[in-house]
Amino acid sequence: MIRVVCKSKLKPDVNVEEYLKLASEVITESRKEKGCFMYTLHGDINDPTIFATIEEWEDEEALRQHDNSEHVRRIVPELRKRRESTDMNIYKVLI
Amino acid sequence: MIRVVCKSKLKPDVNVEEYLKLASEVITESRKEKGCFMYTLHGDINDPTIFATIEEWEDEEALRQHDNSEHVRRIVPELRKRRESTDMNIYKVLI
Repeated sequence: MIRVVCKSKLKPDVNVEEYLKLASEVITESRKEKGCFMYTLHGDINDPTIFATIEEWEDEEALRQHDNSEHVRRIVPELRKRRESTDMNIYKVLI
Repeated sequence: MIRVVCKSKLKPDVNVEEYLKLASEVITESRKEKGCFMYTLHGDINDPTIFATIEEWEDEEALRQHDNSEHVRRIVPELRKRRESTDMNIYKVLI
């Protein structure tokens, strides 16, 4: 099992509601994918422009297939356009 | 329920084994705390100097008590000394 944390900071003028609508479509579709154990979007309680997905995937192959999925290819570029920064890490559990 | 992601990048010359030993003491004690639902340490699969805890707390009060706990006050400064950077966010679940 691997975990992905993808932290995004939105551009100041972005319509957050619109951003969340796009993001929710990716989340709904991703949760249907084989090997997707968890895919949750979070909002930072101190900064309304910071969001993070915490994802759990069966293995790197499941994540690779996710990255090549139709909904990721179609929607994630739209999300990235609205972001000031994206910080993504793929983790294995240690302790 | 709130989630905390604390991403740390270690200084280049740090003894990782020693760092993990210190970290595991905080983790063991934290998991005993009231209101701690999850406290897991991860290692980045692409960069051996990057680690992240993903934590789940009942609420902000439980997290506040954690931050004031004996083991955090004693050990976290030792961990911070060994870090190049620490990036911590407190999140609520949105979707």
